[in-house]
This record gives sequence, C-alpha cells and structure tokens, in this order.
Amino acid sequence: MDVIEYLKKASKEVDGPIRSYIPDEKPANLIEASRQYPYAGGKRMRPAIVLAACGAVGGDKSKAMPLAVAIEYIHNFTLIHDDYMDGDEERRGMKTLHVAYDMPTAILAGDALFAKGFQLIADLDIPAENMRQILRYVTKAVWDLARGQQMDVNNEHQLVSEEVYTETIFLKTSVLFAAAAAGGALCGNADPKVVREIEQFALDMGLGFQMYDDYLGIAGDTTKTGKSVGNDLRKGKCTLMVTYTLEHLKDEKKLARFKSILGNMEASEADVREGMEIMREIGAIDYNKKAAEDKIASAKKHLECLPDSEDKQFMLALADFSINREV
Amino acid sequence: MDVIEYLKKASKEVDGPIRSYIPDEKPANLIEASRQYPYAGGKRMRPAIVLAACGAVGGDKSKAMPLAVAIEYIHNFTLIHDDYMDGDEERRGMKTLHVAYDMPTAILAGDALFAKGFQLIADLDIPAENMRQILRYVTKAVWDLARGQQMDVNNEHQLVSEEVYTETIFLKTSVLFAAAAAGGALCGNADPKVVREIEQFALDMGLGFQMYDDYLGIAGDTTKTGKSVGNDLRKGKCTLMVTYTLEHLKDEKKLARFKSILGNMEASEADVREGMEIMREIGAIDYNKKAAEDKIASAKKHLECLPDSEDKQFMLALADFSINREV
Repeated sequence: MDVIEYLKKASKEVDGPIRSYIPDEKPANLIEASRQYPYAGGKRMRPAIVLAACGAVGGDKSKAMPLAVAIEYIHNFTLIHDDYMDGDEERRGMKTLHVAYDMPTAILAGDALFAKGFQLIADLDIPAENMRQILRYVTKAVWDLARGQQMDVNNEHQLVSEEVYTETIFLKTSVLFAAAAAGGALCGNADPKVVREIEQFALDMGLGFQMYDDYLGIAGDTTKTGKSVGNDLRKGKCTLMVTYTLEHLKDEKKLARFKSILGNMEASEADVREGMEIMREIGAIDYNKKAAEDKIASAKKHLECLPDSEDKQFMLALADFSINREV
Repeated sequence: MDVIEYLKKASKEVDGPIRSYIPDEKPANLIEASRQYPYAGGKRMRPAIVLAACGAVGGDKSKAMPLAVAIEYIHNFTLIHDDYMDGDEERRGMKTLHVAYDMPTAILAGDALFAKGFQLIADLDIPAENMRQILRYVTKAVWDLARGQQMDVNNEHQLVSEEVYTETIFLKTSVLFAAAAAGGALCGNADPKVVREIEQFALDMGLGFQMYDDYLGIAGDTTKTGKSVGNDLRKGKCTLMVTYTLEHLKDEKKLARFKSILGNMEASEADVREGMEIMREIGAIDYNKKAAEDKIASAKKHLECLPDSEDKQFMLALADFSINREV
C-alpha cells in the first residue's frame, strides 16, 4: 500500500467537511482566524486514523466524518495555543495567528475551535452511549495535552530522565492519536475489546512516531527534513538520544564536553558534529531508533484482532511509515 | 426568600464537589493553577442556577451537581483567559494566573479547566440523550462566549450601537446562564418545552443582570460597589446609557462635550460628574434601569409553566435580586 497516496486521498475527502462546519458568523476576524490552521492542511493523520479505524471495524465511514473534523479542529486548537506560548511565528508557510492578528484573537480562535470540535461530537449521528464514550476519550486527551504542554514548558532548559521524556510525549502525542482511533472504532460501533486494542495501537504508534521524529532531527537528511541537523542539540531539546547519553556516558571529560554543547545556541557546526559523534559512539542514536521500532512493532500487534481490510492495511502501513519516513 | 442566604447555602453545597474533581496529577504547577479560580469562590450564581433548575422541574439535584461544577469550571476558564487578554492583575483578592505563574501556565490552566468541565458532562449519571442535549447547550455557549469576548476586544475604544451592545452582552453573559438553567432542567429530565422556557428565563435574566451591572457602575453607591463612580465613563465602557445618550442628544455642543469626557482617562472628577449629568438629563440612566427591569419581568414570565417550589421561588428571587442589588 502506498501510504502517502492513501493519506492524500483521505486528506481530500476530509477537506470539504473541514471547510463546512465553521459558519459565517460575527465577528468576522474571529471566524477567519479560526479557519486558518484547519484550512491550511497538514498531514491530516488524525482524521485519516478516525476514518480508517471506523472502516476497519466494518463501520460506515460517513458516520465518522464529523469526528474526523472534530479531532482536527481540536488538534489545531492546541497548535494555535502552543505556537503563541512558544513564540513561533510561522506554520505551514503562513504567519501564526498571534502574529497575523493579535494575542487575544489567537487565544479566542483556539478556544472557538475547541468548542466547535465538541459541538461536532455532540451532533454525531451514532447511539448516544457511543458518543458519550467518545466524549470521554477526547476530553481526557485534551486534559492530558495541557499537562504534556505544561511539562514541556517546565522541562525547558532542563535535563530530564527517560521516564519523564516518555511521559511527556505520551501526553503530547499519543493520547489524541488514541482518541482518534478509539473514537473512529466507536463510530463504527465496535466491540469494547476491539476499541481498547485500537486505542493501544494508537498509543504505541504515537510514541514511535514522536521518537522517530526526534531521530530524524539528528540523523535525518536536512535537504529533506528542512531542519538544520543538530539544531535540536543547540536548543537542548530533550530526546531519548540525550537522556541515554547522559545516563550511559561514563567518561567524565566527554560528558562535560557533551553538556557544554547541549543547549548552547552559540555552538559551532563543528561542536554540534562532535556532540552527535558522542551520541553515536555511545549507541544513543541506535538506541533511539530501536526504541521507535519496538513501539511500532508493539502497536501493530494490537491490530491482530481485526479482519483484513484496506483500512486495516492502511493503519499498519501508517505505523510502518512513522519509522520509515524521511520527512 | 432571602436570596443572599440561599446563594450562600448553594455555594456551600457546591464547594466540596468543586474541590473534588481536579486530581493530584502532574505537573503540580498546572494542577495548582487550575484550582485557584474555582476554589476562591465568587457568587457561584451559575452552579446555583443549575441546581435550582433541576429541583424546580422535580429532578434529583444530586444528579445535577457534576454539571453545576462543570459550568463553574467553564466559567472560570473564560475568566482566566479574559483576565490575561485584558491585562487584569487581580481577581477575588488574589493575583491573576498569568501574574502569579506565567503566561503559558495561565493559558493551559484555562484549557485544562475547559477539558475537565466537559469530562464531567460526559460522566453525568443521566440518560445519554439528555447528556447530548446538555453538551449542545454548553458547547454553543463556549463558542458564543469566544465570539462575545472577541466583539468586546474589537469594540474597545469604539462607539457601537445599542444593537451591537446587546448582542455582545448576550454572548458574554446570557448564553452560559442559559446552558446552566437548561442543563439543570435536563438533569431533572424536564419536558423539552419546559427546558426551552427555562432557557429563555436565563437568557433574559443574563441581559437584565448585565444591564443593571452597568447601571450600578454609574448610579451605584461607591462605598458598596467598591468601584469608583464614573470610572466606566473614563474607560469609555460601552453601556446602554452611553448608546442612548449618543443617539438622543441633539445639542451639538453638549454632545461634543460628552464625547470629550467619554474614554478620557485624564478626565477630572468634575468632568465625570458633568458627563453623568448629561446622561441623567437626557434620560439615559432611567432608560438603562428600565431596560434591565423589563428584561427581568420578561424572564420571570417564562417560569409560569413551573409548579410552585422553593427552587422556583429562588429562581424568581434571583431574577429580582439581579436588579435590586447594591453590589
């Protein structure tokens, strides 16, 4: 299966609905601002997961479409608030909302998308008890996302343990993936046991996805990722590679050298290469890649309960794609 | 009925539950920040409305308690974000969150309370279809609150029409009152017709409440309101008194004088007294008071469908209190 083609197809299917649920109400600047992120695209992974999970349990995917949109709105709400907090000025080739408009409009556009997402969940054309279950998944995800982002803010410029790192990416990535997957399955009226397996699939895939993302930031091809290699080191970004190195490097001189490069925005190209070489030597880069691969293998096992279908194949392919992509 | 005593009683009943739904999770600073506003009290009008509406339709008020808490959390989420946007540094005698903590923690504490509120709605121990209806009311309220706050931001330092003023306070106050009242009635399994009447009661009461609030800012006893009289004039706050004066004052010299005082933070005590006298002369202060009274009379009519009960009496008394209070 060509996962990129499939994602593009799913993205096209969801584009129309994404543009249909934010009405032309007053005030115009809030409406316009709240449309910018969801209309601008992105990989649309979460909506694709919602639809595939619904299809994979034999459900009617059209019933899951409003949830696919809701999850994308909620994802975009978190991006808007995170971009403001992190001071990021660009996303998807456009100015972020607090730059294009102003601070209040950015915060309110996020809040409005949040509300609209839950409005779509309320209106899902499925049994109310299933809707209630979906609401539980999504509210838990948003609660956890706030915790994860706060941990990220708290951890800035700090060296944390592998455990804290894993918990943070679990909260920031896995829980919304899980709400998307379990929610899609519930739209398809899946058995509770199947819903839980699909949830586990997505939780593990989220971890693998994020770990591999970190790996790409160090080992990736800059001409493809568009990120300058090693910049994560300069920014002192916490990754498995860093936690592993700090824990396993016994040579005190090398350790001191590594710490002097980590989080040093003034570090030269040569400094950064040396830091990367230290991580490579100690086995941290391989360790990070292997950890991501293990999570994806574990994720895929959870889909064994499903009969074969194109949607199941897509979910498996998406998991593989998470650790085989160049971008 | 002594409405203050009744509100105090309701506030006490809801205090315990308000403190029971935010668990000791990580990170501690986010949890602590998200607790500050709801724990600090306030009039607790919205939870009292939820519980009274449930009781007034013959429902079991204990079933409505989690919704009372949810509405209060959601109200507090909007206060936290509004305080940050408005640059307010104090609330309920404490530093606002962005001052006591920092900007990201304030935004995330708001988001977390929002999520927790909807989690409580998902878990309501009532028929799922009723829960779905409540979700529709509350999500619409939050969507409208964002619109109302954005209109407020857009209207700053602008003179708007009575129509725009009324729409803004409808969105900023009435819709959440309505979600509280209709939601409480739905927890009590009320007939859809009754739910709509109770919703209308709250919408009108919200308008009357806010209009009277503006009136107090001008005509109130400063030793009781704690606001310096006429400061709303200096800040150029849009009220019915202002829209009425601008529309009806034909004496061009007086109109120019009034406009020179309005929104002028440097205006002296004498200037402000002159501005208030202009409003009094033209009948704007009476007009504002009368408009608030009309809304409350209209609100109370919507409760005629309910049998007599202590909860109904409280709702009527609360409506009267809205336009007879000194604070």
